[in-house]
Amino acid sequence: MSDKEIIEKLTNLGKKMVSEVEEGESPSFQTITRGRANVLYDEGVGYIRLGDKSEERRFINVGQAKKFMQTVAIANKCKKFLKEDAHTSIRGLYYQLKFSLGENLDEDLFSDQTESNPLIEDLELALGVKREDLNLNANRKGAVAGHLILRDKFGGSTTKIDCRKQGRSGWMIPSDVDNGMEIEELNVDYVLVIEKDALWQRLNEDEYWKKEKCLIVTPMGQASRGCRRLLRKLADKKVPIYVATDCDAWGWYIYWAIKTGSMNLAYLGSEIAVPEARFIGVTMQDIKDYDFLGKLTIKAKGVDLKRAKEMLDYPWINRHKEWVKELKEVLNTKQKLELDALQGPRLSFIGEYLSEKIKNKRLLP
Amino acid sequence: MSDKEIIEKLTNLGKKMVSEVEEGESPSFQTITRGRANVLYDEGVGYIRLGDKSEERRFINVGQAKKFMQTVAIANKCKKFLKEDAHTSIRGLYYQLKFSLGENLDEDLFSDQTESNPLIEDLELALGVKREDLNLNANRKGAVAGHLILRDKFGGSTTKIDCRKQGRSGWMIPSDVDNGMEIEELNVDYVLVIEKDALWQRLNEDEYWKKEKCLIVTPMGQASRGCRRLLRKLADKKVPIYVATDCDAWGWYIYWAIKTGSMNLAYLGSEIAVPEARFIGVTMQDIKDYDFLGKLTIKAKGVDLKRAKEMLDYPWINRHKEWVKELKEVLNTKQKLELDALQGPRLSFIGEYLSEKIKNKRLLP
Repeated sequence: MSDKEIIEKLTNLGKKMVSEVEEGESPSFQTITRGRANVLYDEGVGYIRLGDKSEERRFINVGQAKKFMQTVAIANKCKKFLKEDAHTSIRGLYYQLKFSLGENLDEDLFSDQTESNPLIEDLELALGVKREDLNLNANRKGAVAGHLILRDKFGGSTTKIDCRKQGRSGWMIPSDVDNGMEIEELNVDYVLVIEKDALWQRLNEDEYWKKEKCLIVTPMGQASRGCRRLLRKLADKKVPIYVATDCDAWGWYIYWAIKTGSMNLAYLGSEIAVPEARFIGVTMQDIKDYDFLGKLTIKAKGVDLKRAKEMLDYPWINRHKEWVKELKEVLNTKQKLELDALQGPRLSFIGEYLSEKIKNKRLLP
Repeated sequence: MSDKEIIEKLTNLGKKMVSEVEEGESPSFQTITRGRANVLYDEGVGYIRLGDKSEERRFINVGQAKKFMQTVAIANKCKKFLKEDAHTSIRGLYYQLKFSLGENLDEDLFSDQTESNPLIEDLELALGVKREDLNLNANRKGAVAGHLILRDKFGGSTTKIDCRKQGRSGWMIPSDVDNGMEIEELNVDYVLVIEKDALWQRLNEDEYWKKEKCLIVTPMGQASRGCRRLLRKLADKKVPIYVATDCDAWGWYIYWAIKTGSMNLAYLGSEIAVPEARFIGVTMQDIKDYDFLGKLTIKAKGVDLKRAKEMLDYPWINRHKEWVKELKEVLNTKQKLELDALQGPRLSFIGEYLSEKIKNKRLLP
């Protein structure tokens, strides 16, 4: 969607409200309920999305008047940002709101930023756009190396980014990988997502991406919105996505959030979920398959065991017998394992492990 | 220092120990005490460094035997990494140690990574090198845009990185900006360090670095070892370094850690401290100079007030009357201020503020 189209959507939202006022009605807008009761796993599409329950926000409503005004103020600011072709963070938005509205009202319209965040989500849903499309940046994190060439139109210049030519650093994944950014060339057999930056650096040093004709991506822990969106765009190019994480609560969360999306971002499901993703490891089975790993396990913590139990209850996980076996093994042995342990025998072993598992399709769903 | 020279240092350390054994003496090595009593602010050089108090680590000593063995094992691994020309994290080192030593000993040589960290520092000091020189990567963080061209020899390839051509992402600062990395071209009037990534992105979008002929650097919060080292190298090129942070405990810490180094990394003082750095803001004085900021302040928290009081006691801070005035103002008004507030009137205001303050040299020491 172009900036022009989004400005039009914002304008139409305003026009609708004005006509409601002129007709003596309360201004209103529709959004979709984000409460847990309206969050569902959709087996057909393979990700977590919002249901159809919608809500109306009305100005003439004691409980909603303030929030309504705030949302309109946010929409107004975003329209301004789009017209100026300038981006900011939600913190920047917050200060703009404080600046322009604070002095003309009895009480500050926004006393704290936590008030503006859910209203931004309301607006995203009411308009059917992402906050990145409203020129609001989210935190960025993650790095990429391999045969991916991007055209990046930003701040008045256009740059060609070749992810084969980024040295030790790699290309840093931005907040917004859509507006002004195009994939110009992608020439890889698969995308490898590896949870930890330290191991990504290890693979980058060994030029794993060159030898394996793949793209290596690290979300640097939990994947940012930008990273998930990039993975979705790569999957749309029909390239397999393989994910490697620690075998623990945090690692599993990272994988499943990439694959099925997450509860909090259920409203973005189709934009960021990658149901095609497959899990490489590390797995409890690896401890049996690679002798040396036996002495490099760590005692699982309460949070790991609790998470494993929860996951066994999720229908989208427990329908895979491979995952049930894995999680039960965690609960039985009370052990966990880090990706880093694969550096035990030699620093290059992590790459050997990954390419062997991918070649032999020893992957979990 | 070349890899060859560092391998030689490690070899000599081993040879010395062998000859001590052959002469019937206890193997030993010298390191420098890192305890608080040996940490000092050196007014002559303008940064925090270690004093001259040294310590001997001896093998035949009940309290030191285990640590001694561990340090020798670390030195051995690092020599191997250097010979293989492969880097890893201290987590990778830890697993290599666990792998090679675990099964031949009654008890695991390293039960936890926290045991290996201080020993790496011992070794850095005994050899007079940084851990990055021993092929051990630290966490990386930070981004750069502007006229800086680097030559990056890494993993068998050499890449030229032009920080003017990195689009919305910028160039990500790696862990090691020394070994294999050279500054080929630096053509800027100053370096602007801005605490927050969101504001760096704002400046990057406005092409502030192009208009101002400067380099924009964000440490993304507290500066990593790699970021501090890069700033030191830039300062060595005789380019002024200006730092902008929030006016709060965390922001001040970021500035002073860049300028004078920090207690924890006192042993790296000369390698990472940038005493030439000057502070742009935001300051308490700004609230008086820019009317609109008055309504965008935040109530200072306990930690901010406590930090302000502590700073007033540091001789390297309280000798600057400008800082004493600032900190007293914080304690009096119990207010603080974020850089983000400078986006209040318009998104581009942050750039106008910075360039105006730099042009008129309204800087704190």
